[in-house]
Amino acid sequence: MPPIESIRWSDDGRAVRILDQRRLPEREEYRELRTVDEVRDAIATLAVRGAPAIGIAGAMGMVLALDESTGDSLADESRLAAAHERIRCARPTAVNLAWAVDRMLSVATQSGLVGHDLRAALCDEATRILEEDRAMCRRIGENGAPLIPDGARILTHCNAGALATAGIGTALAAIYVAFEQGKRVHVFADETRPLLQGSRLTAWELERAGIPVTVLVESAAASLMRDGAIDLCIVGADRIAANGDVANKVGTLSLAISARYHNVPFYVAVPTSIVDAATTSGRDIVIEQRGRDEVYSSRGTRAAPDGVAVYNPAFDITPAELVTAIVTDRRVERAPYDFTHNAT
Amino acid sequence: MPPIESIRWSDDGRAVRILDQRRLPEREEYRELRTVDEVRDAIATLAVRGAPAIGIAGAMGMVLALDESTGDSLADESRLAAAHERIRCARPTAVNLAWAVDRMLSVATQSGLVGHDLRAALCDEATRILEEDRAMCRRIGENGAPLIPDGARILTHCNAGALATAGIGTALAAIYVAFEQGKRVHVFADETRPLLQGSRLTAWELERAGIPVTVLVESAAASLMRDGAIDLCIVGADRIAANGDVANKVGTLSLAISARYHNVPFYVAVPTSIVDAATTSGRDIVIEQRGRDEVYSSRGTRAAPDGVAVYNPAFDITPAELVTAIVTDRRVERAPYDFTHNAT
Repeated sequence: MPPIESIRWSDDGRAVRILDQRRLPEREEYRELRTVDEVRDAIATLAVRGAPAIGIAGAMGMVLALDESTGDSLADESRLAAAHERIRCARPTAVNLAWAVDRMLSVATQSGLVGHDLRAALCDEATRILEEDRAMCRRIGENGAPLIPDGARILTHCNAGALATAGIGTALAAIYVAFEQGKRVHVFADETRPLLQGSRLTAWELERAGIPVTVLVESAAASLMRDGAIDLCIVGADRIAANGDVANKVGTLSLAISARYHNVPFYVAVPTSIVDAATTSGRDIVIEQRGRDEVYSSRGTRAAPDGVAVYNPAFDITPAELVTAIVTDRRVERAPYDFTHNAT
Repeated sequence: MPPIESIRWSDDGRAVRILDQRRLPEREEYRELRTVDEVRDAIATLAVRGAPAIGIAGAMGMVLALDESTGDSLADESRLAAAHERIRCARPTAVNLAWAVDRMLSVATQSGLVGHDLRAALCDEATRILEEDRAMCRRIGENGAPLIPDGARILTHCNAGALATAGIGTALAAIYVAFEQGKRVHVFADETRPLLQGSRLTAWELERAGIPVTVLVESAAASLMRDGAIDLCIVGADRIAANGDVANKVGTLSLAISARYHNVPFYVAVPTSIVDAATTSGRDIVIEQRGRDEVYSSRGTRAAPDGVAVYNPAFDITPAELVTAIVTDRRVERAPYDFTHNAT
């Protein structure tokens, strides 16, 4: 069992049950999403978040499209196409979401099934995606743990943990496995503005697991590195291009540059499904621009003058040259990266 | 007249009148500080902030120590010594605060005056410090403006503007003067966690001055640089060591490293009083550690789990090698810096 069930089927099997990540750490609140639109909105508003988790949510959401099925194959096809379209564009940067809903559509097309049987087949496929993710998390952790020395002081960004996956996470998986192996670790979780996934989510799940954690504003990370207080950085990613460029939560680039300046190793841990052989480099990745209110109103109070312009990209691109190694469920890759023939 | 009166004597001359910067941008609220303790608390809680402004506030606060004077020279001396001690340690990093209150104490000692006459002499000295600061801001602006090309897209951090001084600021002074000269500029003000001086204060004062400004989370600055959307960075400082190392608001180091990586010029603009010839390098500067609540509760709501450890340094040290030039009221200095004989 993973330490946290961020996403699974509801007990009646008719809904996608998620831990609503907008409420943490104040409330541990679970929601059951019963329609395609509810799934789509949960993804868009970050109630469920993290590239692996939104891929799983998207796949499970496709199943719900068939809840009203009358067994008419043309109608089923059109329901699935609409759900696919609706969910696929909920967030543009993470490759998993597109990958997962494309996979569901392709299973539907190839199955030749309709109605109840088609729903059952898709439900199996979504469950398979979830279980594969859980297994991949474990293997990422096992591959990444050797990079973490005993006594390591580790900086991480955003949340690439159990909350972002169906398993023990990606970046945090390496830490969880190292910790299981008896290594002493101390994690520095930067808060990750504007939505504070680091201080709200990463700190929450590490504390639950009994792993020592310190929260800091992300701009204080460079000071820690300058003081020699960080042994390594490890983060997740939302997409990795064929040349090794990494799209991840905004702020990753800044940390990677600081890590390079201070000679601190910078690792990225991802499931293989994150690697997008079809994207040549980071320049080809669409960066989602989010609303001004996330920055403008800091959790309810005004943090900037009325009407001020806001630049709020959700992600940034870290060039491959700044990445010491990429840990996947298959192996640890080191530069120069070439994922052209590494399609999933 | 400066665009904003962040600090001056109250109309009755018996109080230090400040614009309470904790309330901005929601409320433009002025407060009159009538005792040494009120001045000390206003400095410690950042109601008044910015190295030049807290120096001025400290100097003015020393005057208030004599409001109860009975003309007894020993009692006056002890009142001033107590006020000096109390105010000087309100914040440890900015050199101006110590510099200003030391200067006041030295004037008092040398004057041979007591009671009302001593108060009047100290009042004149504090007013002189304020007026010198205003004039220095203007000269910093004039020296810095030539570094700003027409059409410049400028990144700044925290608030080094009118709100941080008695004049038109330090880093922002260069922008104000360039703007007065008819240059087109666009300022990117990073929000500056945890207290949001960038989005709350810098954006507020630039908007009032009619200067286009965009707010962003500070970790998004590296993306802008990578996109070639920033022509230069300019920030203030709280102390500069003899070797040119810069103590400034936490996050400055991270920006300076990103600027270097992207070949963007990184300027620091300060009054000469910020340069501390007695401090050999940044390693000798005490960095103020502030309370966990600034990070833990993001403007009222919980941003991290209960009891989690927080690392919250108010400042960081940017090594001189990352600073393209230091603009003072006297000149533009370029590396290698040597301020050993440049005492104020």
